[in-house]
Amino acid sequence: MTEKILLAHGDGGKLTHDLIDNVFVKHFYVDNNALPDAFVADKEPGKIAFTTDTFVVNPLFFKGGDIGKIAIAGTVNDLAVVGAVPKYISCGFIIEEGFLIADLEKIVESMAKTAKEAGVAIVTGDTKVVEKNKGDGVFINTSGIGFVPENRTLSYKEIAPGDAVLINGNIGEHGMAIMSERSGLNFSSPVKSDCQALNNFIEKLMEHVPEVKFMRDPTRGGVATTLKEIATDTGLNITIEEESLPVSDELMGAVDLLGLDPLYLANEGKVLIFVPQDKVETALEIMSSLPEGIGSKQIATVGEGNGQVFLQTAFGGKKIIDLLAGAPLPRIC
Amino acid sequence: MTEKILLAHGDGGKLTHDLIDNVFVKHFYVDNNALPDAFVADKEPGKIAFTTDTFVVNPLFFKGGDIGKIAIAGTVNDLAVVGAVPKYISCGFIIEEGFLIADLEKIVESMAKTAKEAGVAIVTGDTKVVEKNKGDGVFINTSGIGFVPENRTLSYKEIAPGDAVLINGNIGEHGMAIMSERSGLNFSSPVKSDCQALNNFIEKLMEHVPEVKFMRDPTRGGVATTLKEIATDTGLNITIEEESLPVSDELMGAVDLLGLDPLYLANEGKVLIFVPQDKVETALEIMSSLPEGIGSKQIATVGEGNGQVFLQTAFGGKKIIDLLAGAPLPRIC
Repeated sequence: MTEKILLAHGDGGKLTHDLIDNVFVKHFYVDNNALPDAFVADKEPGKIAFTTDTFVVNPLFFKGGDIGKIAIAGTVNDLAVVGAVPKYISCGFIIEEGFLIADLEKIVESMAKTAKEAGVAIVTGDTKVVEKNKGDGVFINTSGIGFVPENRTLSYKEIAPGDAVLINGNIGEHGMAIMSERSGLNFSSPVKSDCQALNNFIEKLMEHVPEVKFMRDPTRGGVATTLKEIATDTGLNITIEEESLPVSDELMGAVDLLGLDPLYLANEGKVLIFVPQDKVETALEIMSSLPEGIGSKQIATVGEGNGQVFLQTAFGGKKIIDLLAGAPLPRIC
Repeated sequence: MTEKILLAHGDGGKLTHDLIDNVFVKHFYVDNNALPDAFVADKEPGKIAFTTDTFVVNPLFFKGGDIGKIAIAGTVNDLAVVGAVPKYISCGFIIEEGFLIADLEKIVESMAKTAKEAGVAIVTGDTKVVEKNKGDGVFINTSGIGFVPENRTLSYKEIAPGDAVLINGNIGEHGMAIMSERSGLNFSSPVKSDCQALNNFIEKLMEHVPEVKFMRDPTRGGVATTLKEIATDTGLNITIEEESLPVSDELMGAVDLLGLDPLYLANEGKVLIFVPQDKVETALEIMSSLPEGIGSKQIATVGEGNGQVFLQTAFGGKKIIDLLAGAPLPRIC
């Protein structure tokens, strides 16, 4: 095998087959010794959930993860937050000519490891190669299928005034990890991406607190943008307590230096959970007892209104929160 | 709205929302006025089929199609050839900064039209933007879910010596359409891509000839590579009759000029169908009666052997056919 990806690795011929055998089939779940064009399986009980996400994160390797880990965890999380148990994952690669096959293999290993931990199978795939300077290393699409257990209905329509918004730990860490890698600044305590699969965590929570009404992962655009989207959909107001926002000291240091707002920074291992007020204590107890939920807190409360999000500041002020706009944070995932 | 794609269209904030509303939601099937992160639906009867394909075709618009049409048709066909009835499609876009929104909308309209004709719904999506010269216009991933009717088993393991290999018309036309666009040569009768969804065609054939044993769409690598893959999987030999290969006069003219072999040129609207010899007549009759099957023919026969593919030439010679290798045909789909 060559050391670098050639255009011919993407033409469907001999080199494509070699790449599939030596890199993909080696690490991924495979039936019949080949990743099939289309995978066929028996269904699980419950409704079917389907999602897709393309990952163009730059850099490909960062503190706390890499594009492979995020590609699996991101799609697993998109399924888990709608109440589905994730099951099958597809992967589509766009590789730039000249990319090191050793780096591709590192990414593929990371995908396989993340998938294994999350209990999902990578069952079908596709590889394309583009000329040098027509891509950027590797882009990965993952799509996923999960099954929603019978009688489980999560919907923003269930959200009502008085409900609490919980989060499973420190915010903004993925976005900050990426932005600080790119800034080239060397922080003495660098922020690590929170990138992780949340399906097992969510399943345990749902088992003990089936009253959970709605969940969403605050990825691109951060907690602020995600809460604004939910407020708009429900027509209710959401008030965030600034003092209750879990933010690490490392993040606060970096945030000041780079002029970024943690509320708008992407998370890749966090979930916003809407529960009735009387379930807050039980939910936080379960969440905090799990490794993915260290530092879980209530950060906001739902109220009557017209789709607004407010930030109640530590000094008693109230700030209107809108969707991310203005300074873009590109290629964060 | 701006005329061109900005990096901020991919950051998950205000401009991403505008783009989704004004381009995607406008044309795609949508429930609840938004393409959800994850789509949830009831299942259909039968086994579930799952496939993914990323499209990086260059140029984006070509005679007979565009990247949008091929992205839907390609994934629909990958499901149809395993015997599934395609149902749900996801789409993931990677757009290069500066790409014209008007061109994006043309592509999205083409996807919507192709999906409608094929009877599939585009139910979930994702958009990313990369910096200028880190992408190339638009790349599209489509993944798809279909359901395989009960009691339908298509498998290469069913293939036996004596079986016939049928195809639904002229070969090599997609590959040639792309290569001639790129060569900049102006042919007096340009070859049009055969790009089309085949699910309705395949479903009609299966209805009348349930004895079909196996199907595969000869895309990248062409008829030669696909038959070689099948021969390898089965351990049987396949002999192609050169004289029976359906090739248009336009294609033969262009093939000579560009030095390409039709057997290795990609098809995007063709399917290789394995049937028992006694079903050839019925199958060809049905196939020829449908618009997608004009020019259907038997092109090869399966025999005992060890996984080889031969081309029986018009002059009585026999040539060994292997996977596409050597001169690559990049970014054909």
